[in-house]
Formats: sequence, C-alpha cells, structure tokens
Amino acid sequence: MPVTKKDIADYLGISRTAVSLVLNNTPNSTISEETRNNILRAAKELGYRDGEVSPKLCYILCNRGQDDPLYATDLHLIENAASRLDYRLLFMNLGSSNKDLFRLEKCLGNQEIAGVILSGDVDERILDIVEKSGVPYVVFSSLENENVNVVEPDVEAIARECTRYLIELGHRQIALFSGRLDMLVHAKTLEGYRKALEEAEIPFDKSLVQVSKDEDGFELCCRMEALDIPYTAAFCANTLIQFGALQWLKDQGIAVPADKSLIGWGMTKLVRMSMPQLTTFYIPQEEKESVVYRLQEVIDDKEAKPKKVYLTKVKLFEGGTAAPCRSV
Amino acid sequence: MPVTKKDIADYLGISRTAVSLVLNNTPNSTISEETRNNILRAAKELGYRDGEVSPKLCYILCNRGQDDPLYATDLHLIENAASRLDYRLLFMNLGSSNKDLFRLEKCLGNQEIAGVILSGDVDERILDIVEKSGVPYVVFSSLENENVNVVEPDVEAIARECTRYLIELGHRQIALFSGRLDMLVHAKTLEGYRKALEEAEIPFDKSLVQVSKDEDGFELCCRMEALDIPYTAAFCANTLIQFGALQWLKDQGIAVPADKSLIGWGMTKLVRMSMPQLTTFYIPQEEKESVVYRLQEVIDDKEAKPKKVYLTKVKLFEGGTAAPCRSV
Repeated sequence: MPVTKKDIADYLGISRTAVSLVLNNTPNSTISEETRNNILRAAKELGYRDGEVSPKLCYILCNRGQDDPLYATDLHLIENAASRLDYRLLFMNLGSSNKDLFRLEKCLGNQEIAGVILSGDVDERILDIVEKSGVPYVVFSSLENENVNVVEPDVEAIARECTRYLIELGHRQIALFSGRLDMLVHAKTLEGYRKALEEAEIPFDKSLVQVSKDEDGFELCCRMEALDIPYTAAFCANTLIQFGALQWLKDQGIAVPADKSLIGWGMTKLVRMSMPQLTTFYIPQEEKESVVYRLQEVIDDKEAKPKKVYLTKVKLFEGGTAAPCRSV
Repeated sequence: MPVTKKDIADYLGISRTAVSLVLNNTPNSTISEETRNNILRAAKELGYRDGEVSPKLCYILCNRGQDDPLYATDLHLIENAASRLDYRLLFMNLGSSNKDLFRLEKCLGNQEIAGVILSGDVDERILDIVEKSGVPYVVFSSLENENVNVVEPDVEAIARECTRYLIELGHRQIALFSGRLDMLVHAKTLEGYRKALEEAEIPFDKSLVQVSKDEDGFELCCRMEALDIPYTAAFCANTLIQFGALQWLKDQGIAVPADKSLIGWGMTKLVRMSMPQLTTFYIPQEEKESVVYRLQEVIDDKEAKPKKVYLTKVKLFEGGTAAPCRSV
C-alpha cells in the first residue's frame, strides 16, 4: 500500500490539511517553517510518493514495423520537446486489432493524457477513437483529411528541391525511383518532381518514373538496365530506395557519383553508414519538434478550427552520391 | 477543469457514492440497473474521464544517440510485453546533465511508476537516483554490479557460439573484429572467442584480434590488408562492424562468402538490408521480453536479493556472408 498524506498526518499527529498544503506546495499557506520541515522529513522517512496525475503526451505509432529507424529518431526528439513543456511521454505501438483499439480507448479515457501525437499509418478506426475521446491530438504524418490537425512535411516542395538540385548539377535525364503511387507521400513526390522539370523546361518522360511497391532500389536499378532506359541521375523517394540503388550500381561497377548521381530525402542511420554516404535533403530536428508545440496550441485552444501545418524547412546532407553531370 | 464524479452526482441529483460505485465498477453494489445506466450515460455526455493513477513501467534509455536502431526494436517489444501485463509505458531518454537527473528524480517520485527498465549506458549517477527512489528496477544492459537486478545477454556464450559456427565450417584463421576492450561487452566477446578456439585446439593468435574504437569494420578490413594478416573468416562483434567489413571486401572485389566469411551478432535493420544479407546470431524477441516479466518478479518481491539473469537463447539468421572454408 502506498503511503498517503493521511499516514503522514497520523504519524506527526497533525491535520491532513497541513500535510496537503505543504506537499502540494500551496503558496501563502500559514504553516510554520518548523511544521513544514517536519512534514517534508516525515514524507521522506515514510517513503511518501506523489499520487497526483501528472500530465502526459502520448506518442502513438500506428501500423508500423518495429524496426523502422525513422520513428526511433522522432520518438527521441518528441520526448525532448515534451519534457521541455513539463510533460511525460507515454509510448504506444498500435496495430489494428480489436485488442489494440480497446487498449487505446481505455488509455485515452484517463485524465492524465493531455494530448496525443499520432504517427505512422494512421487509419480511420484509430482516428475515430481518438476523435471521439475528446483528447486534443495532432496527426504527425501525411493525411488527407481537412477536419483534423495535421503536421506533415511539405513533401511536394521537398521533392521539387531534390529534383532542382540535380538539375542545377547539369542533369537532364533524371529518373524518379518511387514507392507505390496510391500512397499520398509518393503521389506528392511525383508532383514535386514534375514541377521541377516543368520549371526547368525539361520534358516529362514517363519511362523515367519507376515504381517499386516494396521500395526496393536494387530492383529498380536492375529494371532500368533491363529496359535500357538512359539516365544520369535518380531522385530516390526515400533513403531505403537510395541505399538499394547504390548497392546495385556498386555491384555493377558503375561509379557513383561519377557515372550516376543519386539524391534522396530523409535522415536515417543508412545515410551515414552507407559508403559513400548518401546525399539527401532532410527536415532538421528543431523543425520536427514543432509538432509538440503545435499540439500545445491545440490543447490551449480546443475550439480552434483544425488546420494543416506543413514543415518546409530542409537541410542538405552532403554525402558522396551526387555530382555534376559529365555527359552534357 | 476536468469533470468529476461530484459533477455527475450533482447533474443527476443523486449521491456521489452511487456515482463512485458505478464508475469504479465495484462488484455487488446495490445500485439499480436504471440508475447505473443513467450514471454511465451522464458520464459520457459530460465527458467524464478517469482520474485514477494507472500503473506504469518506465523505459529509460541512458546516454545513447537517438538513432541507435537497436533501442527502437527493444522499445517495441517492451511496450508489447508491458501492455500484456496491463501497464502503460513511459519513455524517457536521459543524458547525464543535472537537468535530466532532476527530471528522473521527479518522475520516480510519483506513485504511478510501478517499475523501471534501465537500458543503454547506465552510469553510476543514474543508478544511484533510481536506487534511492525505492522504485523496483531492472538494468537491461551489461553491468558489473552484484547488488542490482540485471538482465543481459550472455555475450560470452554467444561469442563462443559464433566462433564455433565458423570453426564447424572448416575455418581456422578466424579474425575477431572488436570494439574497445575496456567495454564489458567487448571483453566478454573476446573471452568467448578464445574459449571456442581453445575447445577446438586452435592456437590463439593475437594478431587476429583487431580493435576499432569507433567500431569501423571498413577500417578493420583495410588494416588486415595493410598488415598482411591472413584470415579466411571474421567474427564481428556487432552488425555495424560486420556491415562495414562487407563493404570493404566488396569494394576490393573480394568475394563474400566464397573468399572471406563474416559472422556477426545482433539483429538490426542492417542485417536484412545488406547485400548479401548478414549471417548473424541474435536473441529472439520472446527471450528479450523476459526482461518485463523479470521486472514484475522484482515488483512482486521487493525483499528478494538482487540477481543477474542471462539471456542465453540465440537463433541463427542465415544471411549470405558465411560459407565453408575453401582453403583447407
């Protein structure tokens, strides 16, 4: 049984109110310094622990494999930002089983949850439970829903920037290595890629867009070879695709970046671990942390209309996979 | 202001006790079905949320870079096991700043924390705060301290198994690619490697043990070449070293596993992502989850003497980096 304030009061033979005033740190109380010290000492001796509900943010990772390195990085920066606002962070890893959904509902039913960050593949059922719970929340992932607070990378703008970077290096035959186009993030990537080409008056060549459902860059490069599609550079929709592409090119003895340039987007462990390191654009940590501050705004003004906030600030990591085009 | 049980009682014009009995789900209460339903309906309408402290385990990652992929995997399996025992999981990422230590102390001062799992590089100051808090805890990392509950992989046994695997493939010139030997985990790895050689009556050749402080397998392979140390296989102390070694060998046109075999230990994203995939021994998830059940034992019996529990069960992931020795 935990030690209560009443236990401390009984132990010292004083009123429970006095104990509460001191342990809750109520200002302007009329308790003497001596009594105050007695209470604090007794609390320590008896092993009293605060039973108040401390406010928490809950970071929920939806429908994701456990070894996705991206989320580990996000979790850390969210925990840092949350602790700066004096929240503790609960972590929950949700699939779409009924058991998981019940667990979510039960968790949100407790006052301690001040706000929720939904990340990963946020599906309708999870969204529905969070919405009905009345707990303030922000979706930290691409989502097409106007009635929800969303913080997401401006993928289209980033894709444009990546493609433009290759164009400025003199490339004109630029492939896009993409994941499945029914995923919003990849559809937006394609849009950004097209716009950058358009701005540079480079005709859009459909054969240069190659899609791999399981984001296998190795296979994509292999396919370009088999179909004999010429390209001097590829914009890879993520670092996983980029890493796979680099492996294939190296295995074939094709020099990167001398013969083929690769640019990607994202910052994962793969970027620095790869040889050469991957050249990528990424969203800096401070920018990502803004999801926590946005959630605080939503908590503070529950009546405000939901809105979408785009993360637009990107940085370039200068790895060794992109260089000026030689075949101009 | 959160809605309280009293608000519901006032709203319905009934006693607070009746509301408590229903909302706390007290069995054998004498409340009529009708009143019960009224209370539940009112709780829903008014947006009542439970204010009870729900028990939590706290997973604390000490002194670790935010992109270490290993911990993301561990976090997931710990969260799964904790939720099976009806705990919620708090996540905390601690450095050794005074601010972080204060944060830890404050967090542990709350009743809601039923137990703590300490992971990463657990230093004395953190250990001291957790010990003094009186909260049951388990260290989930290698630690040389007899007075603490520890759950850790039996690194020596695993290293023996890895080395033995290469010996059984016919290798006799087996290098050990290690991290710094003042780290307990690497010292134990060396011990296991030596024992396996001894059992097979292969003389221990010091030049075959090569240490890289920053665990750079690329540089280690390069060094073996520069020093002209012959080897047909290497046991790499982790997958990072193994991955780097593979990169160097591939870059040099040395066939893996035909000319050099590599075995490692651990299961990270690198294992499946590498080409060929890495051959490694790893501790299966179910085995790792036992840290949560061990913590439950510590919570249930606070007086028991601290002990060390070794995780010994390993599985082989059959990647493509180990093959029979050809040069026998």
